[in-house]
Amino acid sequence: MRILMDERGKKYMVADQEFHTDFGFITKDDVVGSKAGDVLKTHIGRLFRVIKPNVNDYIELMERKCSIILPKDIGIVLAKTGLGSGFRVLDAGTGAGATALHFGNIVGNEGKVYSYEVREDFAEIAKRNIKGFELKNVQIKHQDVTEGIEEEELDLVFLDLPKPWDVVEYAKESLKIGGYIAAYNPFIEQVQILQRVLKKIGFSEVESFENIFRGIEVTNKGTRPKTRMAGHTGYLTFARKL
Amino acid sequence: MRILMDERGKKYMVADQEFHTDFGFITKDDVVGSKAGDVLKTHIGRLFRVIKPNVNDYIELMERKCSIILPKDIGIVLAKTGLGSGFRVLDAGTGAGATALHFGNIVGNEGKVYSYEVREDFAEIAKRNIKGFELKNVQIKHQDVTEGIEEEELDLVFLDLPKPWDVVEYAKESLKIGGYIAAYNPFIEQVQILQRVLKKIGFSEVESFENIFRGIEVTNKGTRPKTRMAGHTGYLTFARKL
Amino acid sequence: MRILMDERGKKYMVADQEFHTDFGFITKDDVVGSKAGDVLKTHIGRLFRVIKPNVNDYIELMERKCSIILPKDIGIVLAKTGLGSGFRVLDAGTGAGATALHFGNIVGNEGKVYSYEVREDFAEIAKRNIKGFELKNVQIKHQDVTEGIEEEELDLVFLDLPKPWDVVEYAKESLKIGGYIAAYNPFIEQVQILQRVLKKIGFSEVESFENIFRGIEVTNKGTRPKTRMAGHTGYLTFARKL
Amino acid sequence: MRILMDERGKKYMVADQEFHTDFGFITKDDVVGSKAGDVLKTHIGRLFRVIKPNVNDYIELMERKCSIILPKDIGIVLAKTGLGSGFRVLDAGTGAGATALHFGNIVGNEGKVYSYEVREDFAEIAKRNIKGFELKNVQIKHQDVTEGIEEEELDLVFLDLPKPWDVVEYAKESLKIGGYIAAYNPFIEQVQILQRVLKKIGFSEVESFENIFRGIEVTNKGTRPKTRMAGHTGYLTFARKL
Repeated sequence: MRILMDERGKKYMVADQEFHTDFGFITKDDVVGSKAGDVLKTHIGRLFRVIKPNVNDYIELMERKCSIILPKDIGIVLAKTGLGSGFRVLDAGTGAGATALHFGNIVGNEGKVYSYEVREDFAEIAKRNIKGFELKNVQIKHQDVTEGIEEEELDLVFLDLPKPWDVVEYAKESLKIGGYIAAYNPFIEQVQILQRVLKKIGFSEVESFENIFRGIEVTNKGTRPKTRMAGHTGYLTFARKL
Repeated sequence: MRILMDERGKKYMVADQEFHTDFGFITKDDVVGSKAGDVLKTHIGRLFRVIKPNVNDYIELMERKCSIILPKDIGIVLAKTGLGSGFRVLDAGTGAGATALHFGNIVGNEGKVYSYEVREDFAEIAKRNIKGFELKNVQIKHQDVTEGIEEEELDLVFLDLPKPWDVVEYAKESLKIGGYIAAYNPFIEQVQILQRVLKKIGFSEVESFENIFRGIEVTNKGTRPKTRMAGHTGYLTFARKL
Repeated sequence: MRILMDERGKKYMVADQEFHTDFGFITKDDVVGSKAGDVLKTHIGRLFRVIKPNVNDYIELMERKCSIILPKDIGIVLAKTGLGSGFRVLDAGTGAGATALHFGNIVGNEGKVYSYEVREDFAEIAKRNIKGFELKNVQIKHQDVTEGIEEEELDLVFLDLPKPWDVVEYAKESLKIGGYIAAYNPFIEQVQILQRVLKKIGFSEVESFENIFRGIEVTNKGTRPKTRMAGHTGYLTFARKL
Repeated sequence: MRILMDERGKKYMVADQEFHTDFGFITKDDVVGSKAGDVLKTHIGRLFRVIKPNVNDYIELMERKCSIILPKDIGIVLAKTGLGSGFRVLDAGTGAGATALHFGNIVGNEGKVYSYEVREDFAEIAKRNIKGFELKNVQIKHQDVTEGIEEEELDLVFLDLPKPWDVVEYAKESLKIGGYIAAYNPFIEQVQILQRVLKKIGFSEVESFENIFRGIEVTNKGTRPKTRMAGHTGYLTFARKL
C-alpha cells in the first residue's frame, strides 16, 4: 500500500495493482516496483509522486462508515497517557479502526493493540484497514467489550462507547498499576456518570478535558484565526489505576 | 529509576539508593528489589506504592531549568505528524529534554531521536534526564542546529526555537519525502515569518494551530469548566515535504 | 414598523401597509391599528402575533448589503465602555447601520449618535434603516471620517474600518476626558498597528480582546457545546482618553 | 461623586469632601467645585485629574462583598436582549448592585430597574452604591424574588440566582410580549434544569451560551493571547415570551 500524489496535491491510496485516474494509468509493475520519493509517469505522461503513507494520510483515504476521532483529540490521549513503544492497549469500539491505527502505529512490534467492535460490519472494515496499513500488532476482535476484557497487563484502555462506565470494572482488573483508562464522549452527562463510576471503583487522577482547536490563517490580507472551526467534538476523560 | 507514591498520592522519583522522606526511610535493598505494583514499607511502617514511571510522571519530577511544552501541545504534534514506531526525529532545542523523552518513548528501538541543544548546561541536564528514563534511542547533541543538520532520512523535525526559520532549509534537505516539520512558538509574528519561509522554500500543507485546553470539573456542587486555565501557550505550525 | 410572527415562529417586518404572505393577507387597517401582543388574522384565518420590534429582530430583518457585527462583539463594546443614556457617540463606517442602531437604542433622547459612511449606497440604506426603527437620535453622515471628525465632547468613538489608525488623532481631540475609542478588526496586523498608534498618540488603558462565543445545546440526547460555531469574527481594541 | 486619577493612573472615588492620599490632600472646596477634565493640586503640589465616572470605574471602586458579573458576560446580556432607553427591567439577586448599575445606566429616565435582593446587608450596600452613582431609575427591593414579582410590562428579567427556575413562571406573567428572560449560572446542571423549565412553561427561543474572552497582548517581544485568562465564569441562558 502506498500513497500517490498528483500534480495538484490530490492523494490516492494505491494497492499492488494497475492504477487508473483521469490523468491516465500507471502499470502494475511500476506501482509495485516503486518506493517513497519516486515519481511515476502515466501512459499520457502525467506525474505522480510516491509518498510513504503516514497514518493520517491512510486514515483520510481508507474505507469508513462512521465518524473518526480527530488528531486534536487522539493527540491528547497519546500525550496524557504517555503511550509509547511496547505498550499494551485495549481499544473499544473499533469503528473503522482509526484509533487502533494510531495506537498500533506507536506501540511497535513489542506492543499490542486489542480492538473490540460489537458490530460485525465495522469489525470487517477495520480488519481490512489494519491489514492495508500493514500493522501486525493490532488485533480486531468482533466482540462486545461490555461483556468483559480478556487481556491483562494493559497500559491503556481507550473507550469510544456510548456507555463507557459499563467497562470500568473490567478495565480496572485488566490494567497494570500505573495504567490509564481514557474515554471520548460527546455529551457532558456521559462525563458526569463516568467520573462518578471511576471514582467509586477506585481509579485515581480522574480528570476531564476539552480541546478547542483553531486553525490560524496567514495570508496576504492578514493573519487571523480561521473563521471555520468545530465548536465541539468530544470530552476526554482520564483516570489511572494506582 | 522508579516512581514511589505515598499514601497521599504524592510521587517521588527514586534511583537505586536508600530513600528518605518525612514518612521514614526505605532501604536500598528494598528499593532496588522492587517492581511496579509492589508496596514498600518505611522503617516506621508507612506504605509506598511502586509505579512504572510513565513519561509524564518522569517529566514532572525530573530536573529542569526551563519551561516545558505541555501534553496538550506535544499531543497535537504526535497526532498530526503520525509519529510512530521506527521514526527518525530531529528535536531542537532540547531544553530539559521533555519533547525528546516523548519522541524517544514512541519511536522505540528501531527509531531514533537526535536532539540539538546549543546551551551546554541544558544539554547536560537533558543527557541525565534521558539516561534516567533509560532511553537508548535518544542522542542529545550539544550543537547549534542553526549551523546545520547532520542527519538524513528524517520523518520529523521538531523546532522549539526563537527563530525556527533559520533551520527550514536544512530541515528540507534532511527530511524524507512525506516527512513533517513542526514548530512551537509563543508569538504570532514567529508564525507569520515561519509560514512565509516554509512556503517560499517549497514545503506543502503549511498550517498553524492553537489549542485552547480546558479542564472540566465534576463535583458535588455541579459541573463546569475549570475557572483556571492557560489562556495561551504557543502556536503550532506544521508543514510537509512532498 | 412592527414585527409579525407566524404560527411557525417566522418573523416579518411590516410597515404601515397591507401585508401579504403565503398564509393569506392582513388589511392595512388591521396592520396600522395593531399594537404589540395583538393577534391578527389573515383573510384565510391564519394567525400572526404582533411583536414590539427588538433592535436585534429589526437588524436581522432590515435591508443590508454588508456583514454585520454580531451581538457577541457589540455587547463587549457596550459593557466595556459603559455606554449609557445620554452618551454622545461617533460610529464609522456605518455599513447598514447595525451598530448605529444598537448605540441609538441605548443613548436615548438625551444622547446622540453620529455615524459616518463614505459609501453613498450604504449611507442611503442606513438612513432608511434608522428611520424604520424610528430612532431620532442617530444622524447618518455620508462623509469620510478619515478626513476629520466634526463633533466634540464625545463619550465613545467606535471604528469598524480597515485602517482605524487614520482616525485616532481626530478621535483624541473629539473625545471627552474619560471617553473611549473602540475598534473592531478581523486581522491581528490591524490590532498591532492600532495599538502602537494609540499608545504613541497618548491614549491610556490600551487593550485588545477576542471573544470565543459558543452555544450550549440541551437536548434529550444530552448536553454539549454546539458543534457549529464561528472560529473568529474580529478583535476588539479599546483605549481611553485620560 | 467623581473619580480622581493620580499621576500613576491609580483611580480614587471621591465624594463631596476633603480628599487625602499619600500624595497630600485636596480641599473640599476644590473637590466640590471640580468638573470632569479639571486638574486638581494637592497641598504638596501633586496633580490629580478629574474623570467623569464611567459605570465600570464606579463598579470597580464601589463597596462590595460578593463577586460581580464581568463586562464580558453582562455585555452579552445587553446585546442579545437589545436593552435600550426606556426599558423596564427586573434584576435579581442584586448583590452589590453591579448589574443594576449597568441596566440603570442604559434605560435612562424613561426606563426603570427593579432589583430584588433577599439579603438585607447586600441590599443596603446596593442602595448606597446606586445612590452614589446618582441613578434615580433603580429601585433596590429587599425582597425574595422567588415569592413573586410585583412589576408588570417588563422588557427584561435578569436572574443571577442559584435556582432561577423558581422565578420562571412569575417572569412569564410579568414580561411584555417580546420580552426576554436572561440568567447567569456557573454550573451546567443549572442550565439543563432552567432550559427544561423555560421550554415547559412556554418560553420561546431558549438558548444558552458561554463566552471565552481572551486578552491579546501586543508588546515589543511580540503579539499573543494573554497567558492568564478565566477558563470559565458562567453560562448565559436566554428565552423570550412570544
